[in-house]
Amino acid sequence: MTMTEKPSRNGVDTATLFATLDAVKQAPAAARFQFRARNRWVSGTHSQSTIHDFFGVGEERTHAAPTVHDVDHPAVLVGSDQGPTPVEYVLHALAGCLTAGLANIAAARGIELTEVTSTVEGDIDLNGILGLDPDVRNGFQQIRVSFDVKGDAPAEKLQQLVAQSVKRSAVFDILTNGVPVNVEVETP
Amino acid sequence: MTMTEKPSRNGVDTATLFATLDAVKQAPAAARFQFRARNRWVSGTHSQSTIHDFFGVGEERTHAAPTVHDVDHPAVLVGSDQGPTPVEYVLHALAGCLTAGLANIAAARGIELTEVTSTVEGDIDLNGILGLDPDVRNGFQQIRVSFDVKGDAPAEKLQQLVAQSVKRSAVFDILTNGVPVNVEVETP
Repeated sequence: MTMTEKPSRNGVDTATLFATLDAVKQAPAAARFQFRARNRWVSGTHSQSTIHDFFGVGEERTHAAPTVHDVDHPAVLVGSDQGPTPVEYVLHALAGCLTAGLANIAAARGIELTEVTSTVEGDIDLNGILGLDPDVRNGFQQIRVSFDVKGDAPAEKLQQLVAQSVKRSAVFDILTNGVPVNVEVETP
Repeated sequence: MTMTEKPSRNGVDTATLFATLDAVKQAPAAARFQFRARNRWVSGTHSQSTIHDFFGVGEERTHAAPTVHDVDHPAVLVGSDQGPTPVEYVLHALAGCLTAGLANIAAARGIELTEVTSTVEGDIDLNGILGLDPDVRNGFQQIRVSFDVKGDAPAEKLQQLVAQSVKRSAVFDILTNGVPVNVEVETP
């Protein structure tokens, strides 16, 4: 990999990107992060998460600003539709992760992107979560991602950007390989 | 299960909840849903997803309003911090799903909730996504959920609400068991 002349390609600060890679090579413990969401129930299926603090590069940090995210069920699922469903946020997370990786990888490879859009679809049979059919799983049965990528490289090179992003995506790994989840409950 | 006298407990319309269950028992195909997120890259690691349309109960539907969700990396991860990271949205989705289930189950069991909060934490070692250590996975190594549940039932009953919600959670299943993900790319 060689540094490009342009310090910011695709809005990616490639100099800082490579410097960060070098820094982590020298001090691998800096790459240990902990992310958090803090949720409060509002009413019915409606709740809100605040996302602000996280741990990384050896210390407690915060995002530039806290953000609040409403989550609910639509009316057809007996909710008040104050925000997307939990499973839609999962699809959004996958799109965001693959797209961020794609922009970084394109910048590192000297490819200028002009437009990247994607649609992520997830199929779910609610006979699972409703407990009506023991043979139906609770979660998505299948997720499909359709990318539309435009940039100053041949189609094959643009295809390879997506393939490499999939290979290095945190959310793709989480969704395809699963994660151990521990749940604890405090009561008065 | 018996109908409670109160039509809305915990903000849950239990009459409609039970009617929906009965309707799906009669017509299981109604429970087949497809959810979607439509993402557009903005710059660098920043992108936006719009969540609006979905398919369910036999037809195309939309949420009451489309919502737009920014996703980015923080400065320490060479982003512009225009929103939470993709992996934080995953944690939010889990909190939202377990909390919605909990409120529904409490309503069905005649338990009045007064306060439900939760913190979801995920540990991730970025040596994985940075490609610096082949033995480190890309995604979370572990997720921990801590619930704090208050309501008009003994501690044991409140604990059981969370256990049942975990058992019927779409996002918990997605995260712990994984989902097949297919990725396609269109180029000009």
